[in-house]
Amino acid sequence: MSEYFQYQILHRSKKSRARVGRIYTPHGIIDTPNFVAVGTNGTLKALDNRMVDSIGLQLMFCNTYHLLLQPGVEVVRRAGGLHKFIHRNLPIITDSGGFQVFSLAYGSVADEIKSRGAKKTDGHVLKINEEGVLFRSYRDGAKVLLTPETSIQAQKALGADIIIPFDELPPYHIESKALKESLDRTHRWEKRSLEEHLKSPQNQAMYAVIHGGVDADLRKESCDFLSNLPFDGFAIGGSVGKTKDEMVEMLGAALPRLPVEKPNHLLGIGDLESLKRCIPLGVDTFDSSYPTRAARHGLLLTQDGGVKVEKSENANHFGPIEHGCGCWTCQHFTLAYLHHLFKAKELTAYTLATVHNLYFMVALMKRVREQILSDDI
Amino acid sequence: MSEYFQYQILHRSKKSRARVGRIYTPHGIIDTPNFVAVGTNGTLKALDNRMVDSIGLQLMFCNTYHLLLQPGVEVVRRAGGLHKFIHRNLPIITDSGGFQVFSLAYGSVADEIKSRGAKKTDGHVLKINEEGVLFRSYRDGAKVLLTPETSIQAQKALGADIIIPFDELPPYHIESKALKESLDRTHRWEKRSLEEHLKSPQNQAMYAVIHGGVDADLRKESCDFLSNLPFDGFAIGGSVGKTKDEMVEMLGAALPRLPVEKPNHLLGIGDLESLKRCIPLGVDTFDSSYPTRAARHGLLLTQDGGVKVEKSENANHFGPIEHGCGCWTCQHFTLAYLHHLFKAKELTAYTLATVHNLYFMVALMKRVREQILSDDI
Repeated sequence: MSEYFQYQILHRSKKSRARVGRIYTPHGIIDTPNFVAVGTNGTLKALDNRMVDSIGLQLMFCNTYHLLLQPGVEVVRRAGGLHKFIHRNLPIITDSGGFQVFSLAYGSVADEIKSRGAKKTDGHVLKINEEGVLFRSYRDGAKVLLTPETSIQAQKALGADIIIPFDELPPYHIESKALKESLDRTHRWEKRSLEEHLKSPQNQAMYAVIHGGVDADLRKESCDFLSNLPFDGFAIGGSVGKTKDEMVEMLGAALPRLPVEKPNHLLGIGDLESLKRCIPLGVDTFDSSYPTRAARHGLLLTQDGGVKVEKSENANHFGPIEHGCGCWTCQHFTLAYLHHLFKAKELTAYTLATVHNLYFMVALMKRVREQILSDDI
Repeated sequence: MSEYFQYQILHRSKKSRARVGRIYTPHGIIDTPNFVAVGTNGTLKALDNRMVDSIGLQLMFCNTYHLLLQPGVEVVRRAGGLHKFIHRNLPIITDSGGFQVFSLAYGSVADEIKSRGAKKTDGHVLKINEEGVLFRSYRDGAKVLLTPETSIQAQKALGADIIIPFDELPPYHIESKALKESLDRTHRWEKRSLEEHLKSPQNQAMYAVIHGGVDADLRKESCDFLSNLPFDGFAIGGSVGKTKDEMVEMLGAALPRLPVEKPNHLLGIGDLESLKRCIPLGVDTFDSSYPTRAARHGLLLTQDGGVKVEKSENANHFGPIEHGCGCWTCQHFTLAYLHHLFKAKELTAYTLATVHNLYFMVALMKRVREQILSDDI
């Protein structure tokens, strides 16, 4: 592991595989387990990055695919990297673009599960072969070639603290032979990504992505293959199942085979129930747009299970969203006012709700770490 | 003039009718001339009210019509008034609802000028007579009667520092006989409003609304009639013309006839050119959604005439919107990043742009006051 990236375990629960740790990056510490908010385009939706700092969010997830197309990697490079461009001084993780580009081809995981594998007829993806994926920019129609090498070069220009190798996202509905072929290609692509990365590791860490779909044996194989390569950590990618039970089964198969001394991350999953079920399995970080999207749809997270802000009973609730909450929104505004702003469809509503939900996640993860420290999880 | 509301002239320019003054209200001082941002529903669009405070906006304009329908006056009353409900500690002005309800009947002033007076066939207004206006709520279809008395009662429940009598907004395209009849009714309604107000003046000041359309003689008549009543200040309402020249002519006719020792306000006009032309005529305050709406449409105000943020030349502009600007946005983010956020249609873009434009207006008005103090305007 490189000197600019360290993972330290502070405590392993006596009750589960949960652990409390600390990831040291060039832009500061990430306490684990932790929640990672998604700032696809270099911003969380409806919050500026200085506000995000003040909420205490330690790691932010940005999407290489989106940034590649807008503003383009060259702009970010000229700005001095993503941290400078978006004015964030705390850690950032970027993905490889693989997820989005394969979602273009197959539809999103959720869509695809629903549609039972009917291929999305989207003309954006022009070619998929051993080299990589050729697709057309939805912004200007230009052809873009995404390969292990170009993805890593892009992520180096962005300069996130943690980067991710280029992987293939197999559709959920896939024959087992095809899934195995996809896994093998993903492994070859991840190896090429790592080699590209190690040519100039700079100050970045790289997490491998464990694949294998909902086949526990392939998940194990992926763990074994990738943990033999000098990655700094491991992300669990692709579909881990239709149900929470299937997810728990897949993670239960994979996590024990990963090196305990390296951090791991669950990609794209971060709803409250999943957090509750995955943290005891030993997952360290989770990224999800759940709390920020829920906020914009008027679901305010609370320890009692949440408040649907537009419900008429909230019109005269002149207290904060949740008593004892220390967020900017609860410190200054009432639930009645939030209700009104949502009813009036004011943009301010989305900002104030997002502040609250993100603060809730930060506070929740702090409590989780305390519970693990006292072996209650 | 009541003890809770005072207007003090600090300096009258030797060069024009411009003056620098101070309005004292129960929620603090308004330096004049000043710009008043519009927070229709109890918030500026895309900014929370604590952020607005920090920008230094001294007076905020809220719309009684909108608040009457959502959240309703009773909710605000139960919250302890509008300041508490929206968590603003600085002065607020509300209008009477007349403007919006007549806009429903005739279309907005701008629409109506364009359509050359073709009546908008909007079924919301059910009846207009001497008592007031009966209309249907666009929210729930309920019938609402707005009269001088109900408007003032609503504005008392809201509890703004400055309130406005119920007036009739005549269409721009109106025969002179009908305009005179409308003016007479407005005067009767304003008198009834003042009487209703004076039953319990509380801590509120009331500004009369000068009408008379684009007829200079009627404007003068309106000034004379209304300045004989014990209003605390004067607002110029209705259409003051199609062109800036017509506006200057109307204001030139009206303003000298108003008592110099009372503050005045120009309703709904606050673009930069109008400010420049009206301040020398002696206008004290202006409300307009111009800078906040311009922000959301990507026009960032600068001393050089403004920046269209989405222009491709801004993609690589890694300095602030304007050098020397002290706003939150310019202190933390670059024009290139703003350009990117607009291109990506991120909500954060609207907040950051609004912060800048509002700060620009606050700073502009500070410079204007300094120029008047040194007789340069």
